[in-house]
Amino acid sequence: IGTAVPPSWPLNVARMASQNTFWIEYDTFGELKVPNDKYYGVQTVRSTMNFKIGGVTERMPIPVIKAFVNQDYGLDPKIANAMMKAADEVAEGKLNDHFSLVVWQTGSGTQTNMNVNEVISNRAIEMLGGELGSKKPVHPNDHVNKSQSSNDNFPTAMHIAAAVEVHEEMLPGLQKLYDALNAKSKGFAQIIKIGRTHTQDVVPLTLGQEFSGYVQQVSYAMVRIKAAMPRIYELAAGGTAVGTGLNTRIGFAGKVAAKVAALTDLPFVTAPNKFEALAAHDVLIELSGAMNTTACSLMKIANDIRFLGSGPRSGLGELILPENEPGSSIMPGKVNPTQCEAMTMVAAQVMGNRVAVTVGGSNGHFELNVFKPMMIKNVLHSARLLGDTSVSFTENCVVERINKLMNEPLMLVTALNPHIGYDKAAKIAKTAHKNGSTLKETAIELGYLTAQQFDEWVKPKDMLGPK
Amino acid sequence: IGTAVPPSWPLNVARMASQNTFWIEYDTFGELKVPNDKYYGVQTVRSTMNFKIGGVTERMPIPVIKAFVNQDYGLDPKIANAMMKAADEVAEGKLNDHFSLVVWQTGSGTQTNMNVNEVISNRAIEMLGGELGSKKPVHPNDHVNKSQSSNDNFPTAMHIAAAVEVHEEMLPGLQKLYDALNAKSKGFAQIIKIGRTHTQDVVPLTLGQEFSGYVQQVSYAMVRIKAAMPRIYELAAGGTAVGTGLNTRIGFAGKVAAKVAALTDLPFVTAPNKFEALAAHDVLIELSGAMNTTACSLMKIANDIRFLGSGPRSGLGELILPENEPGSSIMPGKVNPTQCEAMTMVAAQVMGNRVAVTVGGSNGHFELNVFKPMMIKNVLHSARLLGDTSVSFTENCVVERINKLMNEPLMLVTALNPHIGYDKAAKIAKTAHKNGSTLKETAIELGYLTAQQFDEWVKPKDMLGPK
Amino acid sequence: IGTAVPPSWPLNVARMASQNTFWIEYDTFGELKVPNDKYYGVQTVRSTMNFKIGGVTERMPIPVIKAFVNQDYGLDPKIANAMMKAADEVAEGKLNDHFSLVVWQTGSGTQTNMNVNEVISNRAIEMLGGELGSKKPVHPNDHVNKSQSSNDNFPTAMHIAAAVEVHEEMLPGLQKLYDALNAKSKGFAQIIKIGRTHTQDVVPLTLGQEFSGYVQQVSYAMVRIKAAMPRIYELAAGGTAVGTGLNTRIGFAGKVAAKVAALTDLPFVTAPNKFEALAAHDVLIELSGAMNTTACSLMKIANDIRFLGSGPRSGLGELILPENEPGSSIMPGKVNPTQCEAMTMVAAQVMGNRVAVTVGGSNGHFELNVFKPMMIKNVLHSARLLGDTSVSFTENCVVERINKLMNEPLMLVTALNPHIGYDKAAKIAKTAHKNGSTLKETAIELGYLTAQQFDEWVKPKDMLGPK
Amino acid sequence: IGTAVPPSWPLNVARMASQNTFWIEYDTFGELKVPNDKYYGVQTVRSTMNFKIGGVTERMPIPVIKAFVNQDYGLDPKIANAMMKAADEVAEGKLNDHFSLVVWQTGSGTQTNMNVNEVISNRAIEMLGGELGSKKPVHPNDHVNKSQSSNDNFPTAMHIAAAVEVHEEMLPGLQKLYDALNAKSKGFAQIIKIGRTHTQDVVPLTLGQEFSGYVQQVSYAMVRIKAAMPRIYELAAGGTAVGTGLNTRIGFAGKVAAKVAALTDLPFVTAPNKFEALAAHDVLIELSGAMNTTACSLMKIANDIRFLGSGPRSGLGELILPENEPGSSIMPGKVNPTQCEAMTMVAAQVMGNRVAVTVGGSNGHFELNVFKPMMIKNVLHSARLLGDTSVSFTENCVVERINKLMNEPLMLVTALNPHIGYDKAAKIAKTAHKNGSTLKETAIELGYLTAQQFDEWVKPKDMLGPK
Repeated sequence: IGTAVPPSWPLNVARMASQNTFWIEYDTFGELKVPNDKYYGVQTVRSTMNFKIGGVTERMPIPVIKAFVNQDYGLDPKIANAMMKAADEVAEGKLNDHFSLVVWQTGSGTQTNMNVNEVISNRAIEMLGGELGSKKPVHPNDHVNKSQSSNDNFPTAMHIAAAVEVHEEMLPGLQKLYDALNAKSKGFAQIIKIGRTHTQDVVPLTLGQEFSGYVQQVSYAMVRIKAAMPRIYELAAGGTAVGTGLNTRIGFAGKVAAKVAALTDLPFVTAPNKFEALAAHDVLIELSGAMNTTACSLMKIANDIRFLGSGPRSGLGELILPENEPGSSIMPGKVNPTQCEAMTMVAAQVMGNRVAVTVGGSNGHFELNVFKPMMIKNVLHSARLLGDTSVSFTENCVVERINKLMNEPLMLVTALNPHIGYDKAAKIAKTAHKNGSTLKETAIELGYLTAQQFDEWVKPKDMLGPK
Repeated sequence: IGTAVPPSWPLNVARMASQNTFWIEYDTFGELKVPNDKYYGVQTVRSTMNFKIGGVTERMPIPVIKAFVNQDYGLDPKIANAMMKAADEVAEGKLNDHFSLVVWQTGSGTQTNMNVNEVISNRAIEMLGGELGSKKPVHPNDHVNKSQSSNDNFPTAMHIAAAVEVHEEMLPGLQKLYDALNAKSKGFAQIIKIGRTHTQDVVPLTLGQEFSGYVQQVSYAMVRIKAAMPRIYELAAGGTAVGTGLNTRIGFAGKVAAKVAALTDLPFVTAPNKFEALAAHDVLIELSGAMNTTACSLMKIANDIRFLGSGPRSGLGELILPENEPGSSIMPGKVNPTQCEAMTMVAAQVMGNRVAVTVGGSNGHFELNVFKPMMIKNVLHSARLLGDTSVSFTENCVVERINKLMNEPLMLVTALNPHIGYDKAAKIAKTAHKNGSTLKETAIELGYLTAQQFDEWVKPKDMLGPK
Repeated sequence: IGTAVPPSWPLNVARMASQNTFWIEYDTFGELKVPNDKYYGVQTVRSTMNFKIGGVTERMPIPVIKAFVNQDYGLDPKIANAMMKAADEVAEGKLNDHFSLVVWQTGSGTQTNMNVNEVISNRAIEMLGGELGSKKPVHPNDHVNKSQSSNDNFPTAMHIAAAVEVHEEMLPGLQKLYDALNAKSKGFAQIIKIGRTHTQDVVPLTLGQEFSGYVQQVSYAMVRIKAAMPRIYELAAGGTAVGTGLNTRIGFAGKVAAKVAALTDLPFVTAPNKFEALAAHDVLIELSGAMNTTACSLMKIANDIRFLGSGPRSGLGELILPENEPGSSIMPGKVNPTQCEAMTMVAAQVMGNRVAVTVGGSNGHFELNVFKPMMIKNVLHSARLLGDTSVSFTENCVVERINKLMNEPLMLVTALNPHIGYDKAAKIAKTAHKNGSTLKETAIELGYLTAQQFDEWVKPKDMLGPK
Repeated sequence: IGTAVPPSWPLNVARMASQNTFWIEYDTFGELKVPNDKYYGVQTVRSTMNFKIGGVTERMPIPVIKAFVNQDYGLDPKIANAMMKAADEVAEGKLNDHFSLVVWQTGSGTQTNMNVNEVISNRAIEMLGGELGSKKPVHPNDHVNKSQSSNDNFPTAMHIAAAVEVHEEMLPGLQKLYDALNAKSKGFAQIIKIGRTHTQDVVPLTLGQEFSGYVQQVSYAMVRIKAAMPRIYELAAGGTAVGTGLNTRIGFAGKVAAKVAALTDLPFVTAPNKFEALAAHDVLIELSGAMNTTACSLMKIANDIRFLGSGPRSGLGELILPENEPGSSIMPGKVNPTQCEAMTMVAAQVMGNRVAVTVGGSNGHFELNVFKPMMIKNVLHSARLLGDTSVSFTENCVVERINKLMNEPLMLVTALNPHIGYDKAAKIAKTAHKNGSTLKETAIELGYLTAQQFDEWVKPKDMLGPK
């Protein structure tokens, strides 16, 4: 018996009930009501008022939120300790519901940075027995944000989130797909089938050889993703407002990177040039480019498999696709290559996301690119989708077995080229096609060779590689 | 005092509690557990098991779900009545939590179709006192789906959802922006300012004239969106599995379209060619193309406004941007053009979404395009974002006033062309620039004209139009 | 006997020989050598020195050059007459070799504008017996350019060139394709074939019905292109430097548009807002968007045809593709769907061009978009390619005839739904598939119906439409 | 005195004259006229007849043609020698005019392969005293093409052409730009200027620091391009028709790669998986992705420089742009950032080309991707444009000097954060902005600090890095 695990939005249900009560919090712009059941504060509320763009699906991705708190603090122990605990809760996903800002906010992610600062501040205040919204004893700017700026803080979180998502979601998914295809390629090593170029029948190859191409594509996809990572591992932290590192101490930048590396077990380093790290996010374009290439590889593989599995009676019919679900609400008994469809839809989405990242990445100005939330949203989206679709495809689709045998392909005639020349071989193929006869019959009738010669020269098994 | 309205996912909280209980439901593939607190059935559960791709943010957009139920049924009155009531609840959003499938499923949307069928069937069964999952007296296929196929049903829902979102979200947002910009353009009619081409100072225009260009862009954006709608109003319903209308009765297609038109008050008609309506979704590419053009218009407007508002002391400094929120977590007192940033991020996203739609739309095969869920998701996403960002920008940004006066632009020299020729005028401008002197002084020093002639010929106010 | 007409670059061969002689021409930047055998002058030479980007293939498209001269002049008759004659020669293509600037120049097209001015000036000077390069009696700025600016002149040429290319190349090509597909659709009206959704066999339709979907796509492609034209017909001429119309006379703008309309027989009008007409080229994004949608339509059609024509023995094999050329340099006798391949390559290019236009169009600033040459190059490129590939495809490919008959598709079982219900019908299809038996045998064996009932209920001819 | 070198199409003028004479050549499709003055043959002529798509600008790029002949032959010495000599002439560009096929042909490039075969065959025949078109003693298929297929031959040429273009055009251009920017960055090390984030004034940095960000971007651009090259160095040669290597000898593939490596001095190797090498061109997507990222970097740099150089009186006015040419045909004396414009137009084109490559690359089927000519055209186009625009920009633009000094930026107040806290610092900045007064006056008036403290705490020079 299977079991249903529908995805669900992580809600702190108890707190929902009390949404009608609130406290008043002031900032330099005036006072606002903050819901009692939330840890965020006035700046977060202000942002939800100013940016009513999209709904809950447009919220800042949780991996970004989590990535924020993997950063260092140098404060008096009591405050630092409470902040650390609060940060842990964020990292564990316990406070997800308190991060309600959408990505369509300020382009530096400042408001999400303040959202995190406010939540950590208020949760730490709560732990220390203080009053929510009082900013005492833990001030969101002076203590939590401290010497950092969103300008270096947010891109640091972007890189951490991207690296973690790539390593935890995307690469394992691709590896799983690679393993499955590789096993198929080996299992299919002896199955001779017709090759197709220009959608037309040509000379034979083995199904294992055909699958080995897919294996190579997925293998290189991982190589490509990894090739972009060294620049993802470079962290902006310590650059503060414009890259100069104003208001930090010498060595701070390196210390943050080392701490993040230790926490995540990934080789993060401090960015060698902080000006580039704030003003440009070329590496996100680069990484989304590698994802785009991966998407193209998956598109090819999924397309091939659904066409090879087309039929059952009037298609190519070489592969048998798994029956995972009823295929049609009107046509009973139909089986569809649904995993291929999910995968190709993901591929199209990733290609689109990549253009969004490109447009945002090319439009930075001066000391700060302000397309940050949109860029990281799209990168994380693509990473997750590619990883997930690879796993889903592997588990639910790469289990076909070969079906049909090969008809005699006219292009076996190619084996005659070295013996009777291209022009005569062409004549044989065209005549056989026209008459619906076999190549052998035709070749003999045309007087180009004997039956014995044909049998000697045309052997599909000998056509699978160089001599 | 403002008030916080963070977006929230519509949950049926009471039912959440009982997630651990379930019933067993069978289909042709075997048996599965269905949660007691959900109206969906075995096919929905199966899809959540087969497509673990992305999380809650990837769910089929609710406008699609709602659009599904605006379709007609011809059954015995008692069953039909219960189904109608259930459908109403779906349309009102009461059952949103029961539509948990992601878009990354079968490319025809069949599983979401069945999800809707199951929910309506079970809710109707419940109303009629039956047992959930029993398929009696309301069968999800035989009664709810009846003579329809996902293949025509889903594209019908796509068109309804797109049309409704365009009319309820996108066009009103653009109209609001148009009205605000238009009012500004008129209010700024008398303010003379420097023109800029190639980012360089040139001859003057009024701020009202400059804004009139934006007004025209938004005006044409609405024209472009509307130009695509006639083909969006064409409904596939009645084409069933491949476009032939198999298993329907003559006249059914037209009747459905008329019913939908009546329910939505939009001029839906039955598609003149059902084969195209199932196999291609060119009109979604067309509509997303109009959104892409709109995105480019908004990008231009938002970029101009943030650059004109750059400063306050070392920028162009012509417009004063509204202070909506603290601009920086490290730099106190900073004001940022955050609405421009949200708008340009939306623009980049819409350009990306459009490529996803293009790739999906170009890859349909034979009688059915199977990129449907991905395509409609991106179209609805863009519609909503463009509408919302227009409203947000209007309410929070288009309220600036002019700041700086114009310095004497060297390009006023253009007024001398008809009097002393291009070459001499060039000499004046270059000399004045080199010496940091005024055009008048320079022109007189060079002996090209008298002070009186200069005053007579060079009048910024006379340079705002043809003579 | 066929005949070879390889495309060739229009060269004035005689003049090539004298490339080593030149005259010296001065401008405000110094002196430069101008080749004796060219009509261009110092500014054109300077541009070729400053912009060595790409080779001859990157030259400003000739339709832009031609479009330039369709504009009005109000000068003393003798000079005007010579200029008019020179302009005629440009329009006739006689002086193509004198327009050697690449599109990668100033983003306003100023240098091409001056290139045209210089060529007309020098050619007119020559006609009037003057000395090349003397600027007398026809000065390139004061006489030829006169009261116009590149800023309005170049976008005017862009719109004229786009409109002419659309009407002379693209729409006729699409019309030709439409006519051919339409004729096929009618000719194939009686041929019943298997339908395919999700690449899987389903219920039947006629080949004529299938082709009618393509006909609809091409029909709508033309509707979409035409929908963008009203804004293409709006001319910027008269806006001069920033849109105010400085240095022109009232009525000039309208007069130019009327003149262009008369010359081209297309309904050009003066742009209602010149600020938008200079600062944004949204309509080129719009038009390239319509081309993008057209490209997707052609991709679908070409893909279908090559898959339907796949084989000849191990493919779908329904259509017989024409043999136009040897298909392979190694495999004798192979026939490839080469026209489909050219068409899908064009489609991919058009999708790419459209992104280039989008990026350029979204990055205009203030009073002038400076991506003009790149934008028009891509629009003209797409128009020409789409027109040409439609003609080529029509002439060389849409001539197939149907080949294979239909195997019994399992999905004929759908006809049983109304009689025995979805679940039993599903059982029949799955059992028949498993056993390789016919539906009829299986249905009878399962005891669901009699042979007579089967024959009565399952009739492919009755499955081609609603009852 | 400068000198004009307009790009010109390499024509063999003498041969043009004789275009009216021809010989008759037969193939399996019939007879065709071949012009006497061309070395190509019947298959090339047939392709020009079947693919009238685009004009001369759409011809197969010459680097592809040249790349073709870097491949090995194993024939009897006399024939091989003549073929080698003919191939050398092709490589030297002497026969460019004989390669008139457009890229919009068969998607495997077969026709261009045959074009090359025919030209080499006929030129070799001519050298050996034979008759053009006689195919004796050098047959285009049997001798020149020999054991190769377009299917491996063409992708081999694609990789060679891409690698050569990257190494000869693109990387040297980027290196030149890098060197120039790096020199500027060092030269500007002491110039303190205002920083800008969100287009707003913030804390200072040096112009050298700002430029160091650009230097890093270009440096990484080269890293990214190089990261893709290992897979470009993999050659398909030896895979023949479907990747199996049918009709070759063991060792042939490696020998070809070694030969190509020796000829080009680039580390080519034989592709480890020939199936992937024929069926997918993921590495061209990867390489065009690196070019896309490079384009985004250049867009950022060029945008910054034109905005920093905006003015001269009503812009940011920090950089003085070089006067390269008259900026306007109507506004005398204007200087425009034309190199920035060419560079940003190139960037947009490269982003578009990348989408074309993506669409083509994702649509390969079975054993052969048939978007080859389009893909390589776009890759070579981007490589050339990026290389050329980098050189042009370096030579004609990166020579500015700094202009304006910095006004007192309000964001110097950030230096006070550690001393008086964020909220008081914000009050100072806002008050100073409102009153138009200095920070120092305001801070003292508000009683937050003394003049002495201000001078001690706020030192722009101390704000350029961490302490």
